[in-house]
Amino acid sequence: MKTSTPQGKSPQSERFRRGWQQLEAIDGEAGKQVINSLQAIAPDLARYVIEFPFGDIYARSGLDLKSREIATIAALTAMGNAQPQLKVHIQAALNVGCTREEILEVVMQMAVYAGFPAALNGMTVVKEVFAS
Amino acid sequence: MKTSTPQGKSPQSERFRRGWQQLEAIDGEAGKQVINSLQAIAPDLARYVIEFPFGDIYARSGLDLKSREIATIAALTAMGNAQPQLKVHIQAALNVGCTREEILEVVMQMAVYAGFPAALNGMTVVKEVFAS
Amino acid sequence: MKTSTPQGKSPQSERFRRGWQQLEAIDGEAGKQVINSLQAIAPDLARYVIEFPFGDIYARSGLDLKSREIATIAALTAMGNAQPQLKVHIQAALNVGCTREEILEVVMQMAVYAGFPAALNGMTVVKEVFAS
Amino acid sequence: MKTSTPQGKSPQSERFRRGWQQLEAIDGEAGKQVINSLQAIAPDLARYVIEFPFGDIYARSGLDLKSREIATIAALTAMGNAQPQLKVHIQAALNVGCTREEILEVVMQMAVYAGFPAALNGMTVVKEVFAS
Amino acid sequence: MKTSTPQGKSPQSERFRRGWQQLEAIDGEAGKQVINSLQAIAPDLARYVIEFPFGDIYARSGLDLKSREIATIAALTAMGNAQPQLKVHIQAALNVGCTREEILEVVMQMAVYAGFPAALNGMTVVKEVFAS
Amino acid sequence: MKTSTPQGKSPQSERFRRGWQQLEAIDGEAGKQVINSLQAIAPDLARYVIEFPFGDIYARSGLDLKSREIATIAALTAMGNAQPQLKVHIQAALNVGCTREEILEVVMQMAVYAGFPAALNGMTVVKEVFAS
Repeated sequence: MKTSTPQGKSPQSERFRRGWQQLEAIDGEAGKQVINSLQAIAPDLARYVIEFPFGDIYARSGLDLKSREIATIAALTAMGNAQPQLKVHIQAALNVGCTREEILEVVMQMAVYAGFPAALNGMTVVKEVFAS
Repeated sequence: MKTSTPQGKSPQSERFRRGWQQLEAIDGEAGKQVINSLQAIAPDLARYVIEFPFGDIYARSGLDLKSREIATIAALTAMGNAQPQLKVHIQAALNVGCTREEILEVVMQMAVYAGFPAALNGMTVVKEVFAS
Repeated sequence: MKTSTPQGKSPQSERFRRGWQQLEAIDGEAGKQVINSLQAIAPDLARYVIEFPFGDIYARSGLDLKSREIATIAALTAMGNAQPQLKVHIQAALNVGCTREEILEVVMQMAVYAGFPAALNGMTVVKEVFAS
Repeated sequence: MKTSTPQGKSPQSERFRRGWQQLEAIDGEAGKQVINSLQAIAPDLARYVIEFPFGDIYARSGLDLKSREIATIAALTAMGNAQPQLKVHIQAALNVGCTREEILEVVMQMAVYAGFPAALNGMTVVKEVFAS
Repeated sequence: MKTSTPQGKSPQSERFRRGWQQLEAIDGEAGKQVINSLQAIAPDLARYVIEFPFGDIYARSGLDLKSREIATIAALTAMGNAQPQLKVHIQAALNVGCTREEILEVVMQMAVYAGFPAALNGMTVVKEVFAS
Repeated sequence: MKTSTPQGKSPQSERFRRGWQQLEAIDGEAGKQVINSLQAIAPDLARYVIEFPFGDIYARSGLDLKSREIATIAALTAMGNAQPQLKVHIQAALNVGCTREEILEVVMQMAVYAGFPAALNGMTVVKEVFAS
């Protein structure tokens, strides 16, 4: 398995550079930790995380970053099986300018669409991030 | 089973009135059809839809309606088992001022968090609403 | 692939007979149709449906059949991706003595645990069964 | 964000009082802890938990409390992403008169509808509650 | 496709060409139809489908195509909310050399991990593809 | 509740013996621990795990054990709410001859079908098993 680390050279280097910048700007330290923890076990998955979600999707115009993070927090809270990612994206939402109140409202609203347990468990993650 | 129809009187009338106004303004005709189709089989559930999601949640300040609809479209696309509600909320998003492009971006972004099938099936619903 | 149809002989015949009786008593015609539609494509899966859910689980003492159907309707409504089975079990619940009101209450209650879309889509199936 | 704590005054006070009584009677200490842990971060969500699930749904006639808890345990076990709530409701089921055997049967039955992992992980929670 | 068509030029053209070849070889006509139906509404999502799943993932060495399709059929059957994609991939599995019996076994096995409804509903899709 | 432990005698003893052999051969120590931890709380569920998944399904011809484990890892990674079982089956996959690279590829591929969080959380479990 060939790896393409942050230091790697590859034909996708443009997407990779753009993705890395987005990931740094949006997710900050938490995002880099996700990438680092993947390097030893699945470096190509680390590269795909940088290239597709960040290099392709988050880099798109057509939807501002605040709205993108609201969409992500809503989805992850509703799915209810992705707490580590929810944690990263609550911090990311704060990084791109969402207020604490907006984040709380999104998580609370999920009680309507995914049930109260989803909202309550999402709130536990919010609490953790806000306290840190 | 006591029913509490739109014409009913109850101690919750303030929430109900507020919810009904929100539902009309946000979901429009599609929302009223959901309520009507529930009246014969489960009128109390119709009332709860008006009171809790609309009277309590959508009426809250703290998050603008455009962001609320982005959150809802994200969650319903990611969950992938609520097509009728996704349809209503794509129309609702247009009603409260989301652009077509913004809606497409939210659905597309779900490929990252819930997989390509969720995004593709969400896109099928988007297509249907935009064509109507 | 060896098949074990309702007419088959096998070491599991005791479980099979017991399961077939349970399936007839609980699911009635709808249950037999499920089995029949599986015979041509996956007869062993048809046999497993009779043996494990019905021969093993529904035949157990420790929980009455009404409560078993309430549990099943709750789970299938909450999961939201098993409409054909929900339909069979709403009829089954009526067959074993649940009232229409009890079934409506179970489906409605799922708004709390799995969100309003799950409850609304479950209600659509209830409506269909009650009207038939 | 205005808060509506157990001590708060609001037009919904009738639903709130009824919900609080239900929550105390059904969930006991575990329920109050859920409410308390929400007060600092999202007091309105705490209030909604009391008002909608307990003040509206559990207070309804039409389905006895034992059956309601059976439905809830079934749904939460099947969904498999709501362990904290499953824990509360296994205790709640005991509080309203379900036997240990009935609870075990509901969780076991979910192997049929949501797969063995859901039943096994539900059983881990059961074990924890029964041992406490 | 206005933005990035099969004929388009872009820095990702290598991934795109590789993905398009994979998609043709694996999914055949059904895959092209998915792409075509996306062209009018979300051409960039069509491009991403070609580039990431096919250009990046299916083009990887390390797992043969038969095993990749077995993994995909298992996942889509278990998730239970992606019937159109399950249909495409049952055909794709046949295209890359899976036998009918192997496909039936994978879907049947999902009864263990995701419950009987998931396996039964998957079998309905299998039946449809095998009959076509 | 009558128990049917590994030492028990029952009409299903043929299925049970076959299942126990399969479980030992495939899951090894981890499988036996699952069974043991169930004995005190739900011995019949322990017996069903041996009889249905292992005695019936894994004992079937028509799909080799490597492919069965690939299917299971795919499904459990995609569902995202069955980490303890995913852990057991990553070890089981190694036991029946899957390479580490094949397992990594299956988990990585789930990013396409169930989203990046599912793949990342699956990778965390892979890492744990490979390190043990």
